Amino acid sequence: MNFKGRDFISIRDYTREEIEYIFKIAMKLEAMSKNNLNLLRGKILASLFFEPSTRTRLSFEAAMLRLGGSVIGFSEPKVASIAKGETLSDTIKVVENYADIIVLRHPLEGAARLAAEIAKIPIINAGSGALFHPTQALLDLYTIKREKGRIDGLTIALVGDLKYGRTVHSLAYALSYYDVNLLLVAPPILRMRKEIINDLVELGVKVKECSSLDEVIKVADVIYITRIQKERFPDISEYERVKGSYKLTLELLNECKPDLIILHPLPRVNELDTRIDDTPFAKYFKQTWYGLIIRMALLALILGAIA
Amino acid sequence: MNFKGRDFISIRDYTREEIEYIFKIAMKLEAMSKNNLNLLRGKILASLFFEPSTRTRLSFEAAMLRLGGSVIGFSEPKVASIAKGETLSDTIKVVENYADIIVLRHPLEGAARLAAEIAKIPIINAGSGALFHPTQALLDLYTIKREKGRIDGLTIALVGDLKYGRTVHSLAYALSYYDVNLLLVAPPILRMRKEIINDLVELGVKVKECSSLDEVIKVADVIYITRIQKERFPDISEYERVKGSYKLTLELLNECKPDLIILHPLPRVNELDTRIDDTPFAKYFKQTWYGLIIRMALLALILGAIA
Amino acid sequence: MNFKGRDFISIRDYTREEIEYIFKIAMKLEAMSKNNLNLLRGKILASLFFEPSTRTRLSFEAAMLRLGGSVIGFSEPKVASIAKGETLSDTIKVVENYADIIVLRHPLEGAARLAAEIAKIPIINAGSGALFHPTQALLDLYTIKREKGRIDGLTIALVGDLKYGRTVHSLAYALSYYDVNLLLVAPPILRMRKEIINDLVELGVKVKECSSLDEVIKVADVIYITRIQKERFPDISEYERVKGSYKLTLELLNECKPDLIILHPLPRVNELDTRIDDTPFAKYFKQTWYGLIIRMALLALILGAIA
Repeated sequence: MNFKGRDFISIRDYTREEIEYIFKIAMKLEAMSKNNLNLLRGKILASLFFEPSTRTRLSFEAAMLRLGGSVIGFSEPKVASIAKGETLSDTIKVVENYADIIVLRHPLEGAARLAAEIAKIPIINAGSGALFHPTQALLDLYTIKREKGRIDGLTIALVGDLKYGRTVHSLAYALSYYDVNLLLVAPPILRMRKEIINDLVELGVKVKECSSLDEVIKVADVIYITRIQKERFPDISEYERVKGSYKLTLELLNECKPDLIILHPLPRVNELDTRIDDTPFAKYFKQTWYGLIIRMALLALILGAIA
Repeated sequence: MNFKGRDFISIRDYTREEIEYIFKIAMKLEAMSKNNLNLLRGKILASLFFEPSTRTRLSFEAAMLRLGGSVIGFSEPKVASIAKGETLSDTIKVVENYADIIVLRHPLEGAARLAAEIAKIPIINAGSGALFHPTQALLDLYTIKREKGRIDGLTIALVGDLKYGRTVHSLAYALSYYDVNLLLVAPPILRMRKEIINDLVELGVKVKECSSLDEVIKVADVIYITRIQKERFPDISEYERVKGSYKLTLELLNECKPDLIILHPLPRVNELDTRIDDTPFAKYFKQTWYGLIIRMALLALILGAIA
Repeated sequence: MNFKGRDFISIRDYTREEIEYIFKIAMKLEAMSKNNLNLLRGKILASLFFEPSTRTRLSFEAAMLRLGGSVIGFSEPKVASIAKGETLSDTIKVVENYADIIVLRHPLEGAARLAAEIAKIPIINAGSGALFHPTQALLDLYTIKREKGRIDGLTIALVGDLKYGRTVHSLAYALSYYDVNLLLVAPPILRMRKEIINDLVELGVKVKECSSLDEVIKVADVIYITRIQKERFPDISEYERVKGSYKLTLELLNECKPDLIILHPLPRVNELDTRIDDTPFAKYFKQTWYGLIIRMALLALILGAIA
């Protein structure tokens, strides 16, 4: 299998076999991760965040450093040349002369794909527009795989803002590689777009739309919950009326499967009760650890340090 | 003596014996500091600054890098996830999966202690609220030790804003481990709080409050001067009236002891005459060098690279 | 030739022989640049940007990291201590205790020179005021040398804002070491200052002022084009009237020499037609690669890793 020099823009850029190969490498790295790895000594990652994101940025940077590489970059556009009116295309054509790989976060939908077409060095999409966040999807899958032992055959509920959240879109497409039951739980105004649901069905996913957490709590093997942003509601009273139905509380867990796992892309606000943190269901912090590992595997493979 | 895995939140977390052991290691590192040290190769420090601070941040980062380690982090909260409403607790639970140690600067009093309770990895407090800045106190003590040869028996004047300045509070508690005469020189409105003075007296420090620099210039072995911020005065005319009494000028030094040393946590504004910079009394820039060394010692000890 | 410990504030700080020695080292590094270089292992560069600049900052940081060194710093003044009123002089006296070399970008004319007078460690000027940007001049010269094989005997057109642009000033002074024909193409309001032209003539440069690109397109061996900022024009209609004469289009290139090369310090806005990017004339992205190399050479020489 050959990853060297490839971009990673959408989760569907890689086949199921390729994704599982990345998992295999990640598992090897888990065993070694506290060692002093020198796999990427001398390599430079450019971390270009045109939108702030502590978690994803720090995760990529830590992954690169743990492999012995180094990092340059910026964490907000204001500091960058675009403040002087530079196009993304020009920024990429400059930075590719400084670095060996670029990790890009950008508010616009097609930004990462455009960058990949231009750049001579590989581009990893760290979130662009509302649809793509492939490394998040990869780490979500990996967390399920590691915590449940398998992905096929599971019932997975995606909860919260399914309209604008890019992590749920990427994850849904990632899950289409597997034989899963997908339950979609969102307020009417934040339901997953019809085109995406059609895509998923066409790809063979069993999809069911549900209207509250109560409907899924007894059957879900995995609950993947995301933030609902107040600003999405034109009418605030509508927000106040519905938010309770998409909030995961400790009480609700009385009815869940004993081996349920709960994931969250973080940051969370109120939708995920902090009293759940100490239960065995909570895997959302462990998930960030898996994120580090999966990004280490991806960087090592794309930069050709592991074949 | 065992430092491995320990937090450092308040200067009183460590005993006098422990502090002096850190000094011993620091002195060894001073001799080696220009060498290529690999003590922390493969380790990652997360530098989380929820309040900007060039000096302290760069000092910690340089200390980590000089020991062969690497650094991730952010230098202002705007860039961080808290902009999305994340709690400190959640940030810590994520970052501890990326790094081996966290250096935290936060505007709230109990922030560093809370972080230490939550985190599985060690936390070093780089300043929180008005009371705590233990690594500054450590470097202040170390500067005195290195420049005067001893701490016991000295007369030390703390000058400036003794009410809000966290460096003077941490230093005063640090000095309580030693047999010193403490002279407090502050405008009435910025005097050290009664509770703290009581604490110090109870800990055996000889404390005397003075009203101007003139009163202490002849007897002090060490003058530790800090900024007085105009904004602290409800009445600006009051500020204009008193500020001269807390300004250290070259002329005032005609009356000082020949081996007086002058320290300042920096940045300074007007309270410390730049004409003093070239006198042998000035140790405030040397102090930043000692700060680098003491932080190297601390990181090496807490991360278990030196026992 | 001895570079160890020297500052680099103005291009005229170094002789022609010294500049060509740097080129010689740069060419050696070009051959090695993808290897794992350890020339600066253990050294720290402080990157102090009091004015934002993605390109120059990332270029210096990548250069340092490629040589095995590490980087501390800040990328905008707001985060720095100057927000607390600290003088540049104090910042330098602190940072010199943390790092082995300082790269400084500052809005004020004399800032870098002042820093160099104060600091015990070497200072590299990464742009100060309207006159100085010596590493840009060095990389511009190096690009010409590498792409044309020589500098002597060439006809070089500087186009755009010749009044405020610091890159054109530094480059013009750099070219005064060589036997060149300099053509200056600027709107009346942005012509190069008389004093500078007089300086150049006195240094032996053949200078001619021209009023549009048409005048130079047939004779130029090198066109060095820069941004014209709308804000420089008190009267916007004047800007609209003249801007076309300083815009390099694909059509204009029908009349150029077959081996013309086009350089630009970037970022560009409209003055340089993107359709030119794919022609063999375009060297402005390659120029950023030469910039990385020349900064590697400079850092290695000044830090004494190469003699």
